[in-house]
Amino acid sequence: MKSFNFYQPTRLLFGSGRRVDAGAAARDLADSALFVVDPMLLTVAADKVEDVQRSLGEAGVRVVTSTDVVPNPTLDAIQRGAELAKGEGVKAVIGMGGGSAIDTAKAIAVAARHPGTAWDYLYFKKAPTAATLPIMAINTTSGTGTQTSKVSVFTNTAETCKSAICDDNLLCRVAIIDPELMLSLPAHVTAATGFDIFTHTFESYINTGACEAVDAIALDAIARVLRSLPVAVTNGSNLSAREDLAWADTLAGQCLANVGTTLPHAAGQPISGHFPKVSHGESLAVIYPAFAAFTWRGAVSKFARVARMFNPALATASDEVAAQSLALEVERFLKLIGLYRRLDDFGITSNDIPPILAHAMEFPDNQGNPVVPSQEDMRQIYMKSFRNA
Amino acid sequence: MKSFNFYQPTRLLFGSGRRVDAGAAARDLADSALFVVDPMLLTVAADKVEDVQRSLGEAGVRVVTSTDVVPNPTLDAIQRGAELAKGEGVKAVIGMGGGSAIDTAKAIAVAARHPGTAWDYLYFKKAPTAATLPIMAINTTSGTGTQTSKVSVFTNTAETCKSAICDDNLLCRVAIIDPELMLSLPAHVTAATGFDIFTHTFESYINTGACEAVDAIALDAIARVLRSLPVAVTNGSNLSAREDLAWADTLAGQCLANVGTTLPHAAGQPISGHFPKVSHGESLAVIYPAFAAFTWRGAVSKFARVARMFNPALATASDEVAAQSLALEVERFLKLIGLYRRLDDFGITSNDIPPILAHAMEFPDNQGNPVVPSQEDMRQIYMKSFRNA
Repeated sequence: MKSFNFYQPTRLLFGSGRRVDAGAAARDLADSALFVVDPMLLTVAADKVEDVQRSLGEAGVRVVTSTDVVPNPTLDAIQRGAELAKGEGVKAVIGMGGGSAIDTAKAIAVAARHPGTAWDYLYFKKAPTAATLPIMAINTTSGTGTQTSKVSVFTNTAETCKSAICDDNLLCRVAIIDPELMLSLPAHVTAATGFDIFTHTFESYINTGACEAVDAIALDAIARVLRSLPVAVTNGSNLSAREDLAWADTLAGQCLANVGTTLPHAAGQPISGHFPKVSHGESLAVIYPAFAAFTWRGAVSKFARVARMFNPALATASDEVAAQSLALEVERFLKLIGLYRRLDDFGITSNDIPPILAHAMEFPDNQGNPVVPSQEDMRQIYMKSFRNA
Repeated sequence: MKSFNFYQPTRLLFGSGRRVDAGAAARDLADSALFVVDPMLLTVAADKVEDVQRSLGEAGVRVVTSTDVVPNPTLDAIQRGAELAKGEGVKAVIGMGGGSAIDTAKAIAVAARHPGTAWDYLYFKKAPTAATLPIMAINTTSGTGTQTSKVSVFTNTAETCKSAICDDNLLCRVAIIDPELMLSLPAHVTAATGFDIFTHTFESYINTGACEAVDAIALDAIARVLRSLPVAVTNGSNLSAREDLAWADTLAGQCLANVGTTLPHAAGQPISGHFPKVSHGESLAVIYPAFAAFTWRGAVSKFARVARMFNPALATASDEVAAQSLALEVERFLKLIGLYRRLDDFGITSNDIPPILAHAMEFPDNQGNPVVPSQEDMRQIYMKSFRNA
């Protein structure tokens, strides 16, 4: 067995209705908190936000609420939140919402307790210290895994640049994963975020930096996505399917925190960067078939194992045949959940590829791919992601 | 899905040779530590203890070494260790050895920072606080799971009573799991401690308080024990088998920390209590066939699943048939690893049962068993654990 480290200190409170445990959990962290809520929730799930606020109030936690959350979190909003946290002297930060709210909360926890701005603590700059405020997450989507990952992604609008803080101090002290909060997600968001769970776990599984601790978690999560994502897309109010995905997403965050993603995230993120109307999940969906066709030779037994989870009839096929067929199996699955996309579908043409390609090659994620792509390999992956390619 | 909590904050450094990372890991916790070492190690593995001491020295950690460790840790030894820790003003405790050394280290971490003695902090008395010294474990056996559990078991010789502290503050901050340290364990110790890994995971899996998070971990660990324990018993120097068991044991500690054991631990521990020559693993081995025969009806699908892991030929049997056969499968496995024992083998007679039985009924573990035993049920389990029963 390969040597590895594994660290996942977040206290997980999982289950339908667990949002009412927010107060007791927060009280164990601090007597005051900045409560960062996605303002959308006040429209679509005001009663559930109130459940959390009531629980915090009953536990005697002094709460300062902020709804200053934008879809791709900005440094500006984070700095405003950090000033508010400092001004109010709160001793913890609670994020409630999707990835945007929770990543905003995480970055505020750093910025409120360190000199400079959150931008000074990006993964390749200074490391945040243990002075970072304790963070609690109450996630309302299943896809980012941010409740168990050590990452906060945000954009510096002045520098037109999206980057991330990545540090153990960004691991939440507590995560409340309440699948009832996910019942109202629309089908297309469910599909895109649910596929993202698959990508986090599959890429951690095939990563050259993978380890047996993460392999087991990843396979468990993949099985849950395969059986429950099609159900949740078809019937968003199926609580069992939401529970399965919520737990898979929590496991996926553990994979991210201990291993991480590979080529598809390097290839996909610049697509969304240059074409913001392409969601993160869509950008991955576009790339996956060509990525799988390019990569399977580098991790035959692992690709074969997952291909057989998609299609048990591959049990009798050789590992090579099964591994090679993963591209097709993923394509079928994407069609099943209504997420199959080609670059043309977003109005992207071959003329748009060069700047996207240049950006893609900068991502360290490529180095963990079982076949490390050259620039020409990556160009071909993009070209094969057009219709009639 | 049932609601559940899951908490496992120990930073795990796993892999052959990782003992040399002790210094850097300890330095992240504190600049000084009490190093509690099983004195046996100084005889059988002096070079490996030196590797750790050198690493700690090179990292600049001030180390006070104590070899005051006895096989069933005593409150007296723990209090002596606590006085030493206080006198020297150390800021962490490192345990290196089997369960005895690490449980001694854990209890010292409590006693050195709280009024009274470690006995005042037993699980049904006062809870230890966050003032507990940070704990690091370097385990040299695979079986107790103490490196990831929140328990420390010790004996108050004055009161002739064995009990435990059980608290989140006893979760190690860091555990170094170095399978090379386990290569020299004799076959019978390997068998008894290895079977204990199975019991921790199986009982957590079938526990009525089980949850899906722990189920997945338990099944992973059970598969590792079934494939690697017979190998390690036959060939103790097989490093792959030792690695597999070491990781299974680490997973088992996570099961213990989040769910826990059932009837066999209630039935087995009083056997060792009244007949100290019966090891913990042997006491469980004695009880398991009768326990399985008594319990399978309460958790048919889970018993069936594990029975099929022992014997894949049961794939075509009904769940009832497979579940019922687990008793026989465990018996075969115990024979395979040379651990099949009957109460007669230890000179125990039916006259010895009443006090053992009375003690067994006191354990809260019984309440999590899929079939909660009456006193008469438990008596019959003991009676069926004699030869020719």
